[in-house]
Amino acid sequence: MISKNQLKLIRQLGQKKYRKQYNQYLVQGEKNVLELLNSPLNVVNIFATNEFINAYQGKYPQANFIEADEETLTKASTLVSNNAAIAIVDMPKAALPQASGLILALDGVSDPGNLGTIIRVADWYGIKHIVTSTDSADAYNPKTISATMGSFVRVSVSQVDLPDYLQSLNLPVYGAFLDGQSVHKTQFTGSGVLLMGSESHGIRETCAKLVTNKITIPAFGGAESLNVAMATGIILDNFKRQA
Amino acid sequence: MISKNQLKLIRQLGQKKYRKQYNQYLVQGEKNVLELLNSPLNVVNIFATNEFINAYQGKYPQANFIEADEETLTKASTLVSNNAAIAIVDMPKAALPQASGLILALDGVSDPGNLGTIIRVADWYGIKHIVTSTDSADAYNPKTISATMGSFVRVSVSQVDLPDYLQSLNLPVYGAFLDGQSVHKTQFTGSGVLLMGSESHGIRETCAKLVTNKITIPAFGGAESLNVAMATGIILDNFKRQA
Repeated sequence: MISKNQLKLIRQLGQKKYRKQYNQYLVQGEKNVLELLNSPLNVVNIFATNEFINAYQGKYPQANFIEADEETLTKASTLVSNNAAIAIVDMPKAALPQASGLILALDGVSDPGNLGTIIRVADWYGIKHIVTSTDSADAYNPKTISATMGSFVRVSVSQVDLPDYLQSLNLPVYGAFLDGQSVHKTQFTGSGVLLMGSESHGIRETCAKLVTNKITIPAFGGAESLNVAMATGIILDNFKRQA
Repeated sequence: MISKNQLKLIRQLGQKKYRKQYNQYLVQGEKNVLELLNSPLNVVNIFATNEFINAYQGKYPQANFIEADEETLTKASTLVSNNAAIAIVDMPKAALPQASGLILALDGVSDPGNLGTIIRVADWYGIKHIVTSTDSADAYNPKTISATMGSFVRVSVSQVDLPDYLQSLNLPVYGAFLDGQSVHKTQFTGSGVLLMGSESHGIRETCAKLVTNKITIPAFGGAESLNVAMATGIILDNFKRQA
């Protein structure tokens, strides 16, 4: 059973200030919790249905399962859909990514769902680290974790002073603009930074001036723009086809 | 002012059965309504704030504007966010796409937001027609229209008996699977069908057996799958880079 205090903690971890205070966050839903159990992340508790516990306790005997019915889990959950499991997880110490391979950098991408989708497609293309501006969405927001579909265990996200960080690297910075060179014709180097701005503001001036290569996804129709997660996926595909 | 009957109609058009009954649908939010005003679609009414009407009545004197305050519009709206304008639009007669160029076909893509995102990226790549299985999401669902970011005016969507339709074409059918040929290595013909399945079920057997070329987005990392809209965008980019 979930105690009153545990329920309170789950609710609190839906908010950023408590995640920061406790250095813990929530992972919700079957797919995400199973990825979590297969990861080196430190899981504090897993509140789960009887079915979930029966199915996985044998495989993960070290996990601290606490039984709860689906109604209680759904009530406790910060997500709309029903939940088979909710885990409380210790935040790992984020290490700044080593400047090798391709680094994905996000400037002011504030929608948690977009960030989650970006983490998922970054994972598909083998990106291990994402850096974001300090005003980007929180990687531990439940909506972000949910949208990653388990990829949060393989991709680390660090909030940094983005202009400072970009300046400290000695790498080409490929910035996505609407008026750059076509990604179909760009010769990408093995190492570098792919810098994406938000849909509403694009890449802001403090970062834009550090871009060495302006790139663009060529348009063939009438849409004015693409969602930032979609654009990130398409550009990563163009990078990786040359890898 | 919005009359009681108009308010009732707006609420009804949030539901598929009434959209079908009245052959009308809703377009909500500034960006989408502006795209609508620039399109040949037949707009019945536009309920809008005083600011919106002042800004656009001069440019669109033929439009039937009805003033409403933002609170009323937000209450009337089927969307969560505030609305500057809600339009009631007549459904155009959908013509089945001519079998030329690239046709996008969706099998069982049931999430309205995904369909809207697919319409947007299809528009980016100049796709004019999408065909979907009869159990796919409704293209006139408010969530779909909203996610298209205006692209609904340029891309037509027809629900068809998909296996029948695919069989009637004499074109290559490129089906997205997890075990096909890499899209980085596929030679795409100028005309053809790109067939996408849903995230949960993939392309179902009745359509899968009509696929002539199984294709795959190559993975470089740990994610098991991509969102169907993301996958569609990435594959369209691979098609179009050869166009």
